[in-house]
Amino acid sequence: MSLPVVAIVGATGAVGVEFLRCLEERNFKLSKLVLLASARSKGKTMQFRGTTLTVEELTADSFKGVDIALFSAGGSISKKFGPIAVQAGAVVVDNSSAYRMDPTVPLVIPEINPEAIKQHKGIIANPNCSTIIAITPLWPIHKVNPIRRLIAATYQAASGAGAAAMEELRASTQAYLKGESFTPNIIPHPYAFNLFSHTSKIDPDSLYNEEEVKMLKETRKIFADNNIMISATCVRVPVLRAHSEALNFECTRPITPAEVKKLLTGAPGIKIVDDPAKNYFPMPQDASGQGDILVGRIRQDSSDASGKSIAMFVAGDQLLKGAALNAVQIAELL
Amino acid sequence: MSLPVVAIVGATGAVGVEFLRCLEERNFKLSKLVLLASARSKGKTMQFRGTTLTVEELTADSFKGVDIALFSAGGSISKKFGPIAVQAGAVVVDNSSAYRMDPTVPLVIPEINPEAIKQHKGIIANPNCSTIIAITPLWPIHKVNPIRRLIAATYQAASGAGAAAMEELRASTQAYLKGESFTPNIIPHPYAFNLFSHTSKIDPDSLYNEEEVKMLKETRKIFADNNIMISATCVRVPVLRAHSEALNFECTRPITPAEVKKLLTGAPGIKIVDDPAKNYFPMPQDASGQGDILVGRIRQDSSDASGKSIAMFVAGDQLLKGAALNAVQIAELL
Repeated sequence: MSLPVVAIVGATGAVGVEFLRCLEERNFKLSKLVLLASARSKGKTMQFRGTTLTVEELTADSFKGVDIALFSAGGSISKKFGPIAVQAGAVVVDNSSAYRMDPTVPLVIPEINPEAIKQHKGIIANPNCSTIIAITPLWPIHKVNPIRRLIAATYQAASGAGAAAMEELRASTQAYLKGESFTPNIIPHPYAFNLFSHTSKIDPDSLYNEEEVKMLKETRKIFADNNIMISATCVRVPVLRAHSEALNFECTRPITPAEVKKLLTGAPGIKIVDDPAKNYFPMPQDASGQGDILVGRIRQDSSDASGKSIAMFVAGDQLLKGAALNAVQIAELL
Repeated sequence: MSLPVVAIVGATGAVGVEFLRCLEERNFKLSKLVLLASARSKGKTMQFRGTTLTVEELTADSFKGVDIALFSAGGSISKKFGPIAVQAGAVVVDNSSAYRMDPTVPLVIPEINPEAIKQHKGIIANPNCSTIIAITPLWPIHKVNPIRRLIAATYQAASGAGAAAMEELRASTQAYLKGESFTPNIIPHPYAFNLFSHTSKIDPDSLYNEEEVKMLKETRKIFADNNIMISATCVRVPVLRAHSEALNFECTRPITPAEVKKLLTGAPGIKIVDDPAKNYFPMPQDASGQGDILVGRIRQDSSDASGKSIAMFVAGDQLLKGAALNAVQIAELL
């Protein structure tokens, strides 16, 4: 079999840039890389393995000869161009939320359900970043002592709202420090030294926002377990690119922190950072730029006398394992 | 009765400055205000009600004639000088953790247990900021439908570590934006666009840090209820002066978000900021500088099918209701 032609849709975005880096760093075998973006970015150049590639405008003709298309340009682009890419013969790995809950589309975290990929009909969905970062470390536990309940509070970075939001965090903070006023364009709230509830739409019945609902629905699909109960509180914090999450979960049977540590030690994609003596635990700055999800503060949940509950704290790079890396791992399995 | 002489111990610190502002804004009746601090701050001047006051060095003789002493200079100063102040005839309102769990010392949030003040033997303790901000809004609920379990994830501001930590957050962020290196002095982790587990000592058995243990023990004392079970995860975020917290709590009987909203509407010290249509909820920037604790994201906890659990998000000024304001409210009740 000849090496695949790979296209990146949304190549100039925050995740797009990481797609290139992941393909490069993981030495992904390909015969050609096609960079696609909106007309605005047409003609921009990007470096890949020492050569200069020019960004092309995304059109209905962009996918001729493409074998694998990595999409990260928002849900509406995925909805419009995903089927066109499939029609042209490509397999789409989509980082948007457009197809995640489609029962005919596999939703995959390679460490958890790689076998689901086989059922694809042209599109494979990449889960939401908050979901990936929460449940990749929960899976080794869930496999042996099923998790019945999860309470998650997130500390989400600017990168989840795109490269422009990262820039707005920098610029608004700079203005704040200079005592200047700043009018936000991307983020609807002041962002300098501030935090706010995730700005996705609130469901008027449950009062959960879309990000929180994704964590529930996607986890159930990926774990293939509709019994798991989840309540998430998703919060955007003034951090640039890694998400952190405080997780309290209840298993089916009693479980100890030592057992959790043992289950997670050496688990794929997980790195334990849990040093109570030095007070050193997962931090977004340490998680930024690395593929592993950092896990620490592993302790018995002191609010549950049954001994079935654990509290822990995780941090993972939203652009890598939360997005580009997970998608490239899926592409590797194709 | 003549108006009291009030002393502030730690007048130049982050909380000390707010003591002055609270006394001024609340038009606290006093005959004289004495500002005390370490030798380093001796001779500094501060403004109070249009007059200039000079900071005196704290010594064993500082409390002659003082009726009320507001302490916020750390636990060791409180341990050393608290009894001296009491000996001299003053009532001490102590913002440190030195006396909080002493069974002979009332631990008071005026909205919750003002009657406890009567039992004081010279010292009244002000609770930890994270405790105050979490449980002031829980009390109106607990009174009618006792809370059995609380899971809290905090988003704590720099101010909790003092004025120097606030300055370090500013300076390290400035350096980061300029691409310069920065060596932290106060905070043991990089703070610019980063977050980290609260740096208080970790208990080697429970693996909870002191801040988290305070939330459990202080809540039980203030609520006078040793049955409440609490698991807190305390995290320092790059925010200047207001703490936020994600709270999931389970009541004794089923409860709805509408009931919670009704119980909190008009409750003293609470302001509901809960607008799902506009996606507007409690933010530290809005909480900063105001005495009320903001409460929003009030919704059923979707991880508990019993209908007994609620999720909500709160934000409160760590220096005001979390410290100086609560202490001044106690002083008002004396």
